[in-house]
Amino acid sequence: MKRLFTHAHILTMIGDPKPIKDASLLVEDGRIAWIGTQMSKAPKADEVIDLKGRLLLPGWTNTHGHAAMTLLRGFADDLPLQTWLQEHMWPLEARFKGEQVRWGTALAVAEMIRGGTTCFADMYDHMDEVAQVVEESGIRASLCRGVIGLGTKEERDRKRREAYQFARDWHGKAEGRITTMMSPHAPYTCPPTYIDEILADATELDLPVHIHLAETRAEVEQNRKDYGVRPVEHLQKLGVFNRPTLVAHAVHVTEEEIDVLAAHDVKISHNPGSNLKLGSGIAPIPAMLAKGLRPSLGTDGAASNNNLDLLEEIQLAAQIHKGVTMDPEVVPAYTALQMGTVFGAEALFLEEEIGTLEVGKKADFITVALEAPHMKPAHGWVSLLVYSASRNDVQDVFVDGRPLMRNRELLTIDEEKVIHEAVRAFQMIVP
Amino acid sequence: MKRLFTHAHILTMIGDPKPIKDASLLVEDGRIAWIGTQMSKAPKADEVIDLKGRLLLPGWTNTHGHAAMTLLRGFADDLPLQTWLQEHMWPLEARFKGEQVRWGTALAVAEMIRGGTTCFADMYDHMDEVAQVVEESGIRASLCRGVIGLGTKEERDRKRREAYQFARDWHGKAEGRITTMMSPHAPYTCPPTYIDEILADATELDLPVHIHLAETRAEVEQNRKDYGVRPVEHLQKLGVFNRPTLVAHAVHVTEEEIDVLAAHDVKISHNPGSNLKLGSGIAPIPAMLAKGLRPSLGTDGAASNNNLDLLEEIQLAAQIHKGVTMDPEVVPAYTALQMGTVFGAEALFLEEEIGTLEVGKKADFITVALEAPHMKPAHGWVSLLVYSASRNDVQDVFVDGRPLMRNRELLTIDEEKVIHEAVRAFQMIVP
Ligand SMILES: [Zn+2]
Ligand SMILES: [Zn+2]
Repeated sequence: MKRLFTHAHILTMIGDPKPIKDASLLVEDGRIAWIGTQMSKAPKADEVIDLKGRLLLPGWTNTHGHAAMTLLRGFADDLPLQTWLQEHMWPLEARFKGEQVRWGTALAVAEMIRGGTTCFADMYDHMDEVAQVVEESGIRASLCRGVIGLGTKEERDRKRREAYQFARDWHGKAEGRITTMMSPHAPYTCPPTYIDEILADATELDLPVHIHLAETRAEVEQNRKDYGVRPVEHLQKLGVFNRPTLVAHAVHVTEEEIDVLAAHDVKISHNPGSNLKLGSGIAPIPAMLAKGLRPSLGTDGAASNNNLDLLEEIQLAAQIHKGVTMDPEVVPAYTALQMGTVFGAEALFLEEEIGTLEVGKKADFITVALEAPHMKPAHGWVSLLVYSASRNDVQDVFVDGRPLMRNRELLTIDEEKVIHEAVRAFQMIVP
Repeated sequence: MKRLFTHAHILTMIGDPKPIKDASLLVEDGRIAWIGTQMSKAPKADEVIDLKGRLLLPGWTNTHGHAAMTLLRGFADDLPLQTWLQEHMWPLEARFKGEQVRWGTALAVAEMIRGGTTCFADMYDHMDEVAQVVEESGIRASLCRGVIGLGTKEERDRKRREAYQFARDWHGKAEGRITTMMSPHAPYTCPPTYIDEILADATELDLPVHIHLAETRAEVEQNRKDYGVRPVEHLQKLGVFNRPTLVAHAVHVTEEEIDVLAAHDVKISHNPGSNLKLGSGIAPIPAMLAKGLRPSLGTDGAASNNNLDLLEEIQLAAQIHKGVTMDPEVVPAYTALQMGTVFGAEALFLEEEIGTLEVGKKADFITVALEAPHMKPAHGWVSLLVYSASRNDVQDVFVDGRPLMRNRELLTIDEEKVIHEAVRAFQMIVP
């Protein structure tokens, strides 16, 4: 099956921030087979899809989240972190069963596709349900069963086994759209020996590690009290960074800690929306960029964001660091766009497959309409995307060249049913 | 003409953050005549409009901007402020004639209505053109000819005369939808004697003052060098705050300065998007709220934002201050919503007419759709608006009860023509 997409301005995200004007892109067997402007040289295709002058670029990669938490969106806001977690989130999450995870995740995937996300990372429980939603919806995902090591040895062992089995069974499934990681939840929720064990599993399965790190000031202090060092040194000593590792947040890290992360090529998921809303603080992204790190972007769960709009995270990344440092030159628009695409692919260890548009890579891309008043005049498309657009400007979403959304209509998800079931699944667990 | 709007969840923005469920609202002669839930008690109407379960609330008030600068949207980004202004903005703005202002403003008004803004403040040049766009489009506006006092005495006098005549001639026009202010541009662009003169004009016309204040750190330093005091004390000594005054930005103000502003009931236009993008800094909104000020929200011009999406400013206001202060309880969702509505009305001295939905006030309101995946489950509508929604969720816009947008279709603006003319008007002035 060969599909030729024509009349698009293509932003490949390889080096140059200038789109290739009025270009075409051929997809064969889910991969990009040709990009060009001379239609006479375009290969023959079984189907030709006219993109009508829209901007075409890689889909967003959301590198940290807990999809099923859409069920708790807006359930409790504007509270101190511990009150929010202990009195509102955890009691309800404890009631989550497979059904809640399935429909919460389906709602999340519907929202993410609508916003232009083609690949997302998820760390949660009942991950078989999540994987099935990914398989059915056609989106790409990097999944892990996040494990908290605070319970009994039995519980800990059960969770670890679940995580191991899930990671082993689903890695490479759904025509290769699912990859997996191993995930000790955080240094403050997993004792060192538990992290050791999970690390051994990760090594055995040859999989990366996905972990929360230095989200709050309190967490850093706790780590010093418990282990005598700050979290980065703690994980380094445990050998976590000897494996490919993705850390979420990294809000409270010093210059020296950034050096350690950079030396080990640790991947960062910057979650500005969630970090702001929870009052966690603002990660030192300009310092990370200056030291050669390539931070990606995540939404975190919808309960602390409260949406899964990765374009909003791109926009926040481009805005807030300028304000905080009082330097309008930090995190330029194109860098923010890289954070949402190619740096995201790197963070999920998928840079060979996605993140840029080039021949041989998977055909994961989106289109953006350029006609609305807020997109005029069109002095620069990168600027328009990062500073002017909103998620509704995303028109089409393709993964492996397969359409998941066309002209803002979802094609692989029964949206009405998903919303109905998600609301019902939540109602089942309210006290 | 009596119009009854039915089946809406009405968020009046009076006190209680809970909407009145499944309610109706009667509009008579442009004003709200009745709000209730018992249809049997609803007055008779000439027309009944079913709002199909949408959320209904006051439209946004955008309290600071330069609408015609949409023409320069994305023309230059990510530059140091002085380079951006002196090398990119001012040379092009110097070429702006009536035609550029007309179409740039029309483009801005189209964008603002699409985003749910029903009233905006504008400070610019060629204000007759702006007023005509307001008159024709049906939106509400508080307009002023912003004057810079850096030229020759002749120039200064001419500008002051223009500002005076504009303010006098247009105040109360367009069926009362236009009000005016007097506007010395900023302490650093107007010598004290010039501010004195404009103040005299404002007093004579009995109009408020709209002025930029303490936007950048450099501006504060310059003020100290030039006048020996910081900008707030400078304007206080000049007697500006003895008139009703709206100041834009107020980023670099101390606790003592906030006390002065509060003591004089000075209105604040907080412009988070523009302040972040230009690297100006972050205004101390939590401190202002603590001292009883009721800051409103503005987008500033589209060249420094780069859109005119007031909902985005509401969302930024609710997010960034939590992050900066590391306190998730500052600027709660409902406060952010007040900043975009009722505090905005106060900032433009229109609180008798707009800002809340109550009998006797102008019927300026919008509706928001609640069906999309990112708006589910609906645990709280205020939370959904402030943390989950985007401008495209706004469905209908009414000013004086007159529909300006219905189901996302603009009714008073020929959008295609406006976009075409705006692009053409810009092309006329590029070198
Ligand atoms: Zn997380
Ligand atoms: Zn301004």
